Amino acid sequence: MTADWQTLQQLYQTLLSRRDADPSESYTASLLARGTPTIARKLGEEALETVIAASGGNREEVISESADLLYHLLVLWVRMGVEPAEVLATLQQREGTSGLEEKRNRKEK
Amino acid sequence: MTADWQTLQQLYQTLLSRRDADPSESYTASLLARGTPTIARKLGEEALETVIAASGGNREEVISESADLLYHLLVLWVRMGVEPAEVLATLQQREGTSGLEEKRNRKEK
Amino acid sequence: MTADWQTLQQLYQTLLSRRDADPSESYTASLLARGTPTIARKLGEEALETVIAASGGNREEVISESADLLYHLLVLWVRMGVEPAEVLATLQQREGTSGLEEKRNRKEK
Amino acid sequence: MTADWQTLQQLYQTLLSRRDADPSESYTASLLARGTPTIARKLGEEALETVIAASGGNREEVISESADLLYHLLVLWVRMGVEPAEVLATLQQREGTSGLEEKRNRKEK
Repeated sequence: MTADWQTLQQLYQTLLSRRDADPSESYTASLLARGTPTIARKLGEEALETVIAASGGNREEVISESADLLYHLLVLWVRMGVEPAEVLATLQQREGTSGLEEKRNRKEK
Repeated sequence: MTADWQTLQQLYQTLLSRRDADPSESYTASLLARGTPTIARKLGEEALETVIAASGGNREEVISESADLLYHLLVLWVRMGVEPAEVLATLQQREGTSGLEEKRNRKEK
Repeated sequence: MTADWQTLQQLYQTLLSRRDADPSESYTASLLARGTPTIARKLGEEALETVIAASGGNREEVISESADLLYHLLVLWVRMGVEPAEVLATLQQREGTSGLEEKRNRKEK
Repeated sequence: MTADWQTLQQLYQTLLSRRDADPSESYTASLLARGTPTIARKLGEEALETVIAASGGNREEVISESADLLYHLLVLWVRMGVEPAEVLATLQQREGTSGLEEKRNRKEK
């Protein structure tokens, strides 16, 4: 594939390995040590910045903030013991036999 | 890789193809037609639900809301003409020679 | 005073009286019955809409969304047993002898 | 009234007077100087913290974060030239002859 989605798998593995790292030497380790509410707040802040960048039509900032958003989402998964495969299977299922579109439409109504 | 990140590439391709679909027959097409501010708001709402699920320690809901968050993030990219490779390259760069951790620490200070 | 802040006190009293109302006949009563996480999510959504309206420089929408934000904030207070006086005393204290500005500056650093 | 809503009017007047203050000596002045997107982001962050505090059932934090939320909302109004009376009239109107509840129900459907 053109886009290197493998980057997210490598990042997830790196984040996993930070669970036992010294919080004073790694931002990820310190974030993981501070717990779920702090990580959730950070995720929310990055989402907010993505929303503001998008509202302003700022394409470059959307790219940069999307990267921050994905990073913090993966940190949250690591902290909560969520495997990427679980989220991706959920996405695939929605896109599956019944069709992503149908599922979405149903949800909306 | 165990986790099927390829799912996100397939989803992105599907979303791209919805740009010319009938908004009355596809949720994605209707979302794309309504424009960036609406998509950004939806992304923000899904992030908010992920944050609330995480704050409550609800692992299953975090999985489900993360899927919704990723879906809307990709719709935003399609609407703004952002290629996944651009975001992934940004992530990879931050994780690169200087190290993701150093970069993050620098940003914090 | 020109601005009728008394409106917020009247609104708070109205919301209080909705605690025992039939959820099927009152939006406020149904919101109060659904519990804190639902009210918190609504508050977050209204804040998000205020942020988007402000980012777009849309003054009229900021006024309208601010009203929705205040309404849901007061509903949250009612649900959690928070008295307006508690929040207002906190605000006043920060603005007090040491000065709101000093307090804020200290918090930032 | 028991709750001193007058505090908000005094705060608004104080914030108005900060428009011409030295940004290096006043947090409010520096926030006003940085512009609407920055103030909107701050408002969003405080709302997020209120949501997280509420989700965790933390009453004391909800009081503290509500105060921060109101402060930043008023700063936003000052920056955008919104008078409190405009927002309060909107709230009052919704609560008026047609009834707040009816209005809300209509909006929901």
